[in-house]
Amino acid sequence: MKRTLVLEALKSIGQEIKAAGWVQIKRDHGKMVFIDLWDRTGILQVVGNKELADLRPQDVVEITGLVKQRPAAMVNKKLATGEIELEAKEVKVLASANELPFDMGADDLRVELPTLLDWRALSLRHPKARAIFRVQETIVQAFREVLKIDGFTEIQAPTIVPTITEGGAEVFKVKYFDKDAFLGQSPQLYKQIMVGVFERVFTLAHAYRAEPSVTARHLTEYLGLDAEMGFIESFQDIMDEAERVVRYIFQKLNKERSEELKLFGAATPKLPAKIPCSKMREAQKIIFERTGRDNRQEPDLEPEDEKEICRYAFEKYGSELIFITHYPTKKRPFYTYPDPKDPEYTCSFDLLGRGLEWVTGGQRINDYQTLLEHVKKWGNKPADFELYLQAFKFGMPQEGGFCLGAERITMQILGLTNIREASFFPRDMERIDQRLATIKPKSLVAKAKKIKNKLK
Amino acid sequence: MKRTLVLEALKSIGQEIKAAGWVQIKRDHGKMVFIDLWDRTGILQVVGNKELADLRPQDVVEITGLVKQRPAAMVNKKLATGEIELEAKEVKVLASANELPFDMGADDLRVELPTLLDWRALSLRHPKARAIFRVQETIVQAFREVLKIDGFTEIQAPTIVPTITEGGAEVFKVKYFDKDAFLGQSPQLYKQIMVGVFERVFTLAHAYRAEPSVTARHLTEYLGLDAEMGFIESFQDIMDEAERVVRYIFQKLNKERSEELKLFGAATPKLPAKIPCSKMREAQKIIFERTGRDNRQEPDLEPEDEKEICRYAFEKYGSELIFITHYPTKKRPFYTYPDPKDPEYTCSFDLLGRGLEWVTGGQRINDYQTLLEHVKKWGNKPADFELYLQAFKFGMPQEGGFCLGAERITMQILGLTNIREASFFPRDMERIDQRLATIKPKSLVAKAKKIKNKLK
Repeated sequence: MKRTLVLEALKSIGQEIKAAGWVQIKRDHGKMVFIDLWDRTGILQVVGNKELADLRPQDVVEITGLVKQRPAAMVNKKLATGEIELEAKEVKVLASANELPFDMGADDLRVELPTLLDWRALSLRHPKARAIFRVQETIVQAFREVLKIDGFTEIQAPTIVPTITEGGAEVFKVKYFDKDAFLGQSPQLYKQIMVGVFERVFTLAHAYRAEPSVTARHLTEYLGLDAEMGFIESFQDIMDEAERVVRYIFQKLNKERSEELKLFGAATPKLPAKIPCSKMREAQKIIFERTGRDNRQEPDLEPEDEKEICRYAFEKYGSELIFITHYPTKKRPFYTYPDPKDPEYTCSFDLLGRGLEWVTGGQRINDYQTLLEHVKKWGNKPADFELYLQAFKFGMPQEGGFCLGAERITMQILGLTNIREASFFPRDMERIDQRLATIKPKSLVAKAKKIKNKLK
Repeated sequence: MKRTLVLEALKSIGQEIKAAGWVQIKRDHGKMVFIDLWDRTGILQVVGNKELADLRPQDVVEITGLVKQRPAAMVNKKLATGEIELEAKEVKVLASANELPFDMGADDLRVELPTLLDWRALSLRHPKARAIFRVQETIVQAFREVLKIDGFTEIQAPTIVPTITEGGAEVFKVKYFDKDAFLGQSPQLYKQIMVGVFERVFTLAHAYRAEPSVTARHLTEYLGLDAEMGFIESFQDIMDEAERVVRYIFQKLNKERSEELKLFGAATPKLPAKIPCSKMREAQKIIFERTGRDNRQEPDLEPEDEKEICRYAFEKYGSELIFITHYPTKKRPFYTYPDPKDPEYTCSFDLLGRGLEWVTGGQRINDYQTLLEHVKKWGNKPADFELYLQAFKFGMPQEGGFCLGAERITMQILGLTNIREASFFPRDMERIDQRLATIKPKSLVAKAKKIKNKLK
């Protein structure tokens, strides 16, 4: 007999089928035993007695039996297959599972984060973990979909790079045969080069940051969703496209992942017709007026400021997202486009939501001479950026782009407390799958500082 | 006036528009000057005289003018916009290009490979380079599309890994804070873990091989298209899915990229109703009978053998692809499933085409105890594979999968002579964007051997 997928069993009422999957939950009521059988299409309740008695959670089983309509009072409206159950006749264990280190049957996995990650191959099987990554998959698909509609071409950027592009010490070194290379902090330079080739491009690229600290919102390896577009009339075009992308993501999530959002009591951000926008200096003024906290001379928004300006945006505009623009030129990378009206500040933006950064982007310098000067002024050697500069030597229109972190946006939409929950196999200073026992955070911070000074 | 995209100009005959793009080619006929203006939607012929006289190839321009129907005799059937031309009235140079190091206007870029790569930011703008990467984009899209139809979930695998998974010395080391880590040679272990989570998964993952040699078909960083599926009945299910994927890719290319294929005089492989299949030992016998070359005791097919068996498949079955199965157990990685009928050989396969490997795959060991024994037998420490083994400890069905290299398959379909042409920014022992001047291949080969011995 061929296998019937759980969801297809709905079409087989009154017939015998063979289903296969994992035992998700077993409820033993003495004479009657129930199991929830999971396969990639859903969950099916199986009912039986001694055939099911010895099964354990996570066993891989093949169950032959009769598909029966449940009595009206027993219908489970939470399940797509809630109207039926499978009456087990024959049970075959295809692979048996060891005893679980914690209860996988509860609605929430009530374990601490280190335990969750120590048992990652198992904990990923919890329904809520699956939901997180189905949401993330949809975010990634939506990103690609909307940009294809808008005439973008998907490109691939390399991750082994010859130079440090974004500045700072937070970069991993690779032993590349008898030379040193680095892991790219972003596909930034490559996506800009590719604007010269396809005009509008996007890429999904792993990005690497050697963060010498452990926080709830940073990973050392993450998935960047990067877009870049030429022939912009102004900086506004980039923000408009970024807004279109996030709105499209939210729409697709609401259409296809409402069940998963519900599991987390989560909703996509509330937005007015147009996401509000404020210059960084104006935002600092608003924050000062609201809280008395005077950060008006700071070169960036503090985490507390980001939270406050989000509160303001919601109260004033009913918006859970707000664009903050015009960050100081000297605090942004060399390629950022200074505002012609006030070159101390850049045509750059962050899209903030629920107290954190969701998207970052901006216009880039596209004039070869200006770019060359900036490379030098920021303390870099033009020879290290030869290929990048080449793209501007041979005609580059006004351009800019933006980037979303896939894990970050998943975390923010679902309201997760730690970004590690939104990464399949999170890497940080203390962990690559398993815990790295001998890492000493303090000495590393000192070391990172030393490297930073060297690079200056 | 708002910009009109080149392809939209077709709807504006008799009207004035503003087009913007790159000067692809200029033909100066004295009184009359023609340029081919390129934007992301296509090419438009612009006609003028002195307004166009000073333009140079790759200049970024904005041209205002009148869209005119061409006389019947002047229609260019090769262009989507071949029925019209733009009569220039006003030309604005948005960004001017330096003089080109070589002619970008010819149908083929007649430069040596090192020159092509030294000027990669420019050479990627050649119409044939664009065609290569549009073909690759479609391959990648087709891969995702067909697997989504078949119930696969897209996952993300990390690339910084704690252990060497595939064996061998060809691995890059990363300085990970005060520890050593490696760049993943494939997402193999992670996609297998994820079968336990989603049953069927796929991932697009960069893979890294520290190949201490420079060949026409290897890169040190490439894009792997990886799939893995549980609840297979047999090894055949994996080959069937791999065949379905490549057929779907070919169909989509023929539907959407016929222009690009034509540019290369290329066609997708000719296939009979079912791709033929031969065990490796049988293939060696066939080769011996056809050529007298006796490699019947060799543990693998030599490059010459791969070419010969492809010739045979085409002559005998009219097929440009052939599955070769049952490679020797000791030559395959520890996780490969030995054939129960003859455990010296594995349930593994390569799909060969036009003389080279296109896809590699097979069934994996899913029984925890057997896998544990293999880990040890292959000289590895189980502690190094803790997370991976965990997935099998908690119930894993019969499973297997396969992998295609995006650049390799692009090269093979288009008939390119070097895989570097199918990689946006190819990395090899001698180059990361720019040439790495001081690499000494010979000493490296010796070094690689030393590492290899250490790892044994």
